[in-house]
Formats: sequence, C-alpha cells, structure tokens
Amino acid sequence: MSTNRLEAFSDGVLAVAITLLVLELRVPPIGGHSTLAHALLAQWPQYAAYVTSFLTIGIIWINHHAMIGRLREADRTILALNLLLLLTIGVLPFATDLMATYLKQSRGQHLAAAVYSGAFLLMSIAFVSLNGHILLSKSRLLGLDLTLEQRRKILLRGGIGIVPYLMATALAPVSPYITLGICGAVAGYYALPVGSGG
Amino acid sequence: MSTNRLEAFSDGVLAVAITLLVLELRVPPIGGHSTLAHALLAQWPQYAAYVTSFLTIGIIWINHHAMIGRLREADRTILALNLLLLLTIGVLPFATDLMATYLKQSRGQHLAAAVYSGAFLLMSIAFVSLNGHILLSKSRLLGLDLTLEQRRKILLRGGIGIVPYLMATALAPVSPYITLGICGAVAGYYALPVGSGG
Amino acid sequence: MSTNRLEAFSDGVLAVAITLLVLELRVPPIGGHSTLAHALLAQWPQYAAYVTSFLTIGIIWINHHAMIGRLREADRTILALNLLLLLTIGVLPFATDLMATYLKQSRGQHLAAAVYSGAFLLMSIAFVSLNGHILLSKSRLLGLDLTLEQRRKILLRGGIGIVPYLMATALAPVSPYITLGICGAVAGYYALPVGSGG
Amino acid sequence: MSTNRLEAFSDGVLAVAITLLVLELRVPPIGGHSTLAHALLAQWPQYAAYVTSFLTIGIIWINHHAMIGRLREADRTILALNLLLLLTIGVLPFATDLMATYLKQSRGQHLAAAVYSGAFLLMSIAFVSLNGHILLSKSRLLGLDLTLEQRRKILLRGGIGIVPYLMATALAPVSPYITLGICGAVAGYYALPVGSGG
Repeated sequence: MSTNRLEAFSDGVLAVAITLLVLELRVPPIGGHSTLAHALLAQWPQYAAYVTSFLTIGIIWINHHAMIGRLREADRTILALNLLLLLTIGVLPFATDLMATYLKQSRGQHLAAAVYSGAFLLMSIAFVSLNGHILLSKSRLLGLDLTLEQRRKILLRGGIGIVPYLMATALAPVSPYITLGICGAVAGYYALPVGSGG
Repeated sequence: MSTNRLEAFSDGVLAVAITLLVLELRVPPIGGHSTLAHALLAQWPQYAAYVTSFLTIGIIWINHHAMIGRLREADRTILALNLLLLLTIGVLPFATDLMATYLKQSRGQHLAAAVYSGAFLLMSIAFVSLNGHILLSKSRLLGLDLTLEQRRKILLRGGIGIVPYLMATALAPVSPYITLGICGAVAGYYALPVGSGG
Repeated sequence: MSTNRLEAFSDGVLAVAITLLVLELRVPPIGGHSTLAHALLAQWPQYAAYVTSFLTIGIIWINHHAMIGRLREADRTILALNLLLLLTIGVLPFATDLMATYLKQSRGQHLAAAVYSGAFLLMSIAFVSLNGHILLSKSRLLGLDLTLEQRRKILLRGGIGIVPYLMATALAPVSPYITLGICGAVAGYYALPVGSGG
Repeated sequence: MSTNRLEAFSDGVLAVAITLLVLELRVPPIGGHSTLAHALLAQWPQYAAYVTSFLTIGIIWINHHAMIGRLREADRTILALNLLLLLTIGVLPFATDLMATYLKQSRGQHLAAAVYSGAFLLMSIAFVSLNGHILLSKSRLLGLDLTLEQRRKILLRGGIGIVPYLMATALAPVSPYITLGICGAVAGYYALPVGSGG
C-alpha cells in the first residue's frame, strides 16, 4: 500500500482536529457590572490551552510528515498504529476544553491538568511506538538506506519528547499552572522558528 | 472518471466524521458534593462509544482504500453508491452521541443501542453493496485481473463483517451493553495490530 | 494556475460542509411520559432535511468534479466565482438546521422553507454562472476541444437544475412540505443510481 | 521537504476554518409577538461577519497558493511561520462569532470590533512575515528566478493589505460599523471578480 493516502487521511484528521480547537474558545456573556474586556481577559486559560494545543498538533504534523516521508510503503500494522496515533490526537480538543474549563477552578484543576498533559503523553507514546515499529521492525519498508545506528538515533531524538510530558503529568498534583507551562514551553520551543533552527 | 478525486473526497468526509466524534465528549460540570474524577468516570459510555466509533471509521477507511485501489476508474453508479456509503458514515457522530447519552438511562437505552449498531449495520451493507457492484457488475473497471472466484472471495470476506452487526442489533433489546461490547470487539479486532496480522 | 489545488480546496470545503450537516441532528431529551422512540420519530424533519442536503451537496461535488475536470487551468475570475459558489455551499448547514427546526412549527415554517430552497437556488445559480463563464468566456482555458454547440448543451443541461429550486421556493408560501418534497426529489433523482443511468 | 504536503495541510486547515464559520449562524428562536422574518433580519450582523470572514479566508487561500507556488521546497522555518499563520486563521471563527454577537450591543461593541479586525491584522502580518522570509531570506528555495526588485515588489503588494486592517482596528473605538465596513470592503474588493481583474 502506498503512503499517499495514509498521508492524505492523516493530514485530514490533523487539519480538522487543529481547527476544531477553536470551538473551545467561547464568546463570553457580560455580567451585570462587568465589561467585555474583563470577560475576555478572565478566560485567558482558553487562549493558553488553545495556543499550546494548536502548536503541539502542528509539531506532530511536521514530525508525522518526516516519519511517513521515510516510508516506501505501509502495511496493515503501520495503518493500525497510525490509527491509534490519530485516536490520541482526536481527543485533544476535548482535553483542551477540559483544561481550559477547570484551570482556575479550585475543584478539579489538578485532575484536568493531568488529563491534559496525559493526553499529550499518550500521543507521544503512540508516535514513538509507530516510529519505533517503522524504524526497527519494518525497516525493509523504509525508502532510504539507514544504518541501525542512524535509525536508533532518529528514534531516540523523538523519544526524548516523552520526558517533558511525563514531568508535566507528574507535576499536575502540585500545580496545574506548571503543567500548562511545561506543555506550552515544549510547544513553543519546537514549533517556533527559534526552536527549529531554521 | 479517475478515482483520485473520489478518494480525496471520501478521505475528506471520513477524516471530518472521525474527528467530529470528539464533539460528543463533553466537559462535565461538577455537582454539589461530587468531584471531577467522579464526573469524568461517570461518563464512561462517552469514551466507550467514542473509541468504538473512531476505530470503526478507521477500519472503513482502510477497507475503502483497498476497495477503491482496485478500481481503474469510476462511473456515476459507483459515485452514487459511494455517496450513499458516505451518508451512512456521516450520521455516525449522531448515532454515537445517542448511544453515549442513553446507555445508562433506564428509558431509551435499548433503542439507542439498536440505532447505534443499526447505523454500523447500514454502513456495512452500503459498503458491501458498493464492493459487490464493483467486483461483479463493473469488474471491467477493475485495474487488475481477478478471476470471478477471487472476486467472490474478496466480497465474501467483506460481507462477513455484516454478521456481528446483525447480532449486535438483534441483541439490543436484551442488553445495550452486549450491543456496545460486540461493536467494540469488532472494532478492536480489525483495527488493532493484533487483528491485522501485521 | 493549475486546477489541482482548486479541486483540493473545493473538495475540502464540500467534505467539511457535507459532514457538518450531522451537527443538525440532535439527541432528543425524553419528556415526562414520552419514549425515546417517540422523541426520535418526532424529529423526522431533521432526518429529511439532512438526507436532502447531504445528497444535494454530493451531487454538487460530482458536477463540480466534471466542471473543473474540463479546465486546463484557472484564472482569478474563476477562483473568485468558485469562492462565491463555496460561500453558498457553506451556508447549507445553517439553512438545513433552519428548515428542520421550523418545518413543523405553525409560525415560520413557510419562510424557513423558502430560505432552504432559496439556498439551493442560490447555489445552483452560482454553479451555472461559474460553468457558463468557463464554457463561454474562458473557453480558451478548457482542456478539450468543444464546439460552441456542445458547450451550450452542457451549460443548458446544468441550467435546467435551477428550475425545480425556483418552483420549490415559489411554493414555500403554499406548503413547506411541498418545498422539501421537491428538493428531496431532485436530490434523490440525481444522486441515486436510478437517476444516474449507470 | 517538498511543498505538496505543506499545501495539503494548509488547504485542510483553511477549508475547515472557512466551513466552520457557519456554526456562528444560529437558528433564532421566535419570541412572543415576533415573526421568524423579524428574528432572521435582526441577526444581520451574523451574516455580515460571516460573508466578510468567508471571503477573507478565501483571499488568503488564493494568496497562499500563489506564495507556496513560488517555493521549490520548504524548510523548518517556513513550516514554523506557516503554522503561526494557520494559528491566526484558526481563531477567525471565534473572532467572527464575537463580532456578530456584540456588534449591536451597547456594551462591548467597540472591543469586539477591535478584536475582529485585529485578528485580520495579525493574519496579514503573519502572511507578510512568511512571504518576506521566503522572498528575501530564503530566496534560494524559490522555484523561479526573480530579481531582488521583483521580489520586493511582490512583497510590497501583499504588505499593502495590512493598511486597511490597521485603519479598521484604529477606528473600532469610533464605530464598530466602520470597522466591519472596511473589513467587508477589503474582502469584497479582492475576492469578487470585479477586484480580481479577470
């Protein structure tokens, strides 16, 4: 099976998921003595969670592109693992909404943060699993010659991405703001020009 | 008519439908003495229905790819049958939401389960109809040489997928949990690496 | 400008619009002495409007494919007219929701029906305008040699599609059911295998 | 990295964002002595904001196509800047909804208008930044030979688009209607056949 339609379908799911995030941004009503400025500022967790999730899905798209670009063709195991990866991406709008809703609440904020970074963690694990499967078990499907050494290095570089999400999830019981801060820093570092090394 | 744009449009609808499923996952409010943990756990039917529908649409995508991949070109009958198939896929977010909403309700749970598996049943029938039409009536449009025997075998293999959905729908009056269990088992078996045989 | 990305973008908008229609199908609550069966049946206008709009967008997709397939390249006027066509398609989920909400209401049902078929009418006019522009003014951009006679015939065949929507809109003050019936009949006739002539 | 998948992903995000705008159009309830006609007319800000945003995203799509069409390949900085551009496009459905909700309110209308045109302003700046980066810093990635003079001219032509959004944002404290009018005029001028110069 060629990788064209695998890319097309994955791009579709990623494009829809990244754009659906906007549904989490809600037009606020204005209370009695409040102003729209105040109401908009008060929902800053929505913007923070939105930007973090948007950039994170964007990074995944870039990395997914690189991963599939190395493939010459796909078999059913790769399709299945890719589907699991898309499943973890598909729930991100929900996890983002949960985080934005509860970040400032006294009740639920720690769990919401754990679910949020936990969703990113799951996504990273799914990504590394698929990448590891391609690079190690199915390397005969690769379109380029890479030594075992090179393949391990690529895998390791991607695998490191799991670490900050582990930390962010572990720190959710301490402070949901730290969790969001770590996830946002990862997104900013990898997505923005400064982190990409041009 | 070439099959490129047929694939592109079908991929688009499948990608949007699979991603729209997330709108069925709702951020729960916390009641008086409850916790977010409890509120999130209480809506497990949403997660079960989400994962089942997500994987099922994923399987359909994989099979759709294989089906259209055998075609050299499409005519209007194929476009029409494909549109009917997309129609049955397009309603899945609604059927999934219905199932998730009523699974634990004493009233409506049996009908909701019947509608849920009934939607999968309709989708399977539409798929097999299109596949049968391609393999038997329009085999001159196939890009590869397949004997009648081989074409019948491919069709039969796909047709078997209807059986569990028939069972799941028939058992909805007995227990909606059995219905969901069957649909989930089918999704897991075909979508996950273990069922794909690598 | 090549037509590839014009097709890709149009396919994307059409695929999203056709799939977003499902958001109009709402999981009904059950009232005091009612049942889910009754609640689901009571919202049949939602299903009728959904199927009609789904098949109509499907037909537009098939015809759009044929129209752009004749083009060798696109210029900015074609892009602009195509954008207007997409604009009329983009509002269909709203018009469908309006129709489904008001069809059975004693107040508003006539206007809702007029808006619904009026949206299809606008879409047809936008389609014919673009097609006419391509076939008559910009025929040098066509990829195939067609005589003026042939081009006029293609245009006329598409233009006939405006007539039933004109009738459906004109009859909305008489009965919204007639309006929906006409729109549904057009969708069924062109979209289903029986109308496509194989 | 080839530009194919960059285009496919960007087209996907643009197609979803432009189609999601429809969710801002809401089926109005009818109050006591009102009519549907009155209720529909009263929400004209929704239609005005919808059409303006739809055409604006359409223009961005056309220009994005031209911009990427000049590229031979993309590097990570281009991917990162493109992702930022998509981020500004992704929030447009929210900004549009905000504008439509508050345009006629005595409180919040000025800020809502400033956010609306401010979102377009940000989008223009992101677009010009990416285009400037491609044309000036990364011109070795361009697929065609363009003199520095020509590249500066292309950039300047696009950069002029920032001016009306600056004006519209600056005039939001004066009147939100002027802001909407300017944004709508820009959209109409560039998107419609009359402005495209055929």
